[in-house]
Amino acid sequence: MKETGLKLILPGWVGDFLDDSKAYPEIEDRMRLVIGLARKNIEMGTGGPFGSAVFDMGTHRLISVGVNLVESSNCSVLHAEMVALILAQEKLRSYDLGAEGMPECELVSSAEPCAMCFGAIPWSGVRRLVCGASGEVAEAIGFDEGDKVGDWAGSLNRLGMEVIKNVLGAEAAEVLRQYLRMGGKIYNSRIQRRR
Amino acid sequence: MKETGLKLILPGWVGDFLDDSKAYPEIEDRMRLVIGLARKNIEMGTGGPFGSAVFDMGTHRLISVGVNLVESSNCSVLHAEMVALILAQEKLRSYDLGAEGMPECELVSSAEPCAMCFGAIPWSGVRRLVCGASGEVAEAIGFDEGDKVGDWAGSLNRLGMEVIKNVLGAEAAEVLRQYLRMGGKIYNSRIQRRR
Repeated sequence: MKETGLKLILPGWVGDFLDDSKAYPEIEDRMRLVIGLARKNIEMGTGGPFGSAVFDMGTHRLISVGVNLVESSNCSVLHAEMVALILAQEKLRSYDLGAEGMPECELVSSAEPCAMCFGAIPWSGVRRLVCGASGEVAEAIGFDEGDKVGDWAGSLNRLGMEVIKNVLGAEAAEVLRQYLRMGGKIYNSRIQRRR
Repeated sequence: MKETGLKLILPGWVGDFLDDSKAYPEIEDRMRLVIGLARKNIEMGTGGPFGSAVFDMGTHRLISVGVNLVESSNCSVLHAEMVALILAQEKLRSYDLGAEGMPECELVSSAEPCAMCFGAIPWSGVRRLVCGASGEVAEAIGFDEGDKVGDWAGSLNRLGMEVIKNVLGAEAAEVLRQYLRMGGKIYNSRIQRRR
């Protein structure tokens, strides 16, 4: 029995977004970057309409980026947030971005987290979550968020994490609509239909 | 900016557990396998006290296994369940194990899922979840489950998934206690202390 393992490979075009010499002091600039990743991901046909990045909260520089790689990697785990967190931890060689000696880290995402990504955030050690499109808007467009605790942001707050919602929310939501107009697939809708 | 990506590599000893020519018709046999993985993972010092596997519900054969690889891979995402799901999807070349043409898949895990793994399960396409140690027992020992919806099993049921709890629960919990006695680290306890 052979276990070949996971190879997480970002699409080649992502290189255009990776400039860790640049600072993104404004929250809107950081959000614009991840919305740009989401848009490019659908325009290039490399995945779903979601982008994320981890930033150093001290220097406002980029640590890692993520896009949705579910279809291209045959892996339902690889939501944009998960990819960004995995790559930040790999880059900083720590499974806990909140550990002693780590820069304070912020996860910026073009949409609010689904149940899986919500659950992954406390384990990651990030100190702040910044979201674009709201879960309500994403669900209205047809995306499923999964079953999260009602006050999910409060839950992260109680663990010491800050949550900032609806940064460029309309612009972020527009990428979700663009994906649908392009005929993009909302995966695992099969399970949804069972409800 | 270099993105090196994730390499998910199982410890070499896992090979002893991988026999996909063997059938595991009894649920206790399947649970014994994942408890064995959890125990071996701590005895070999390769990770936390958790084991999982995906089985074909028709043939009762093994599709993939997972152990907790958080520390060894510097990746907070790599809980045993996530590893087993990722490897099953890779083996069957589908991000949706519930898709047309896939065998019906069961995830067997030595403990109940944390909030992240709970959120990941519906996206994976498995039809059934089988758990060993209960979340209450795991939390009493000191492990954090994260913030899940109250009736998490009911939530999976409503999506068409069966959940079977407490299979060899005492035996599974004993591995968690063994880990603590061995001085094992319960990671991200830093965040927990903030509560």
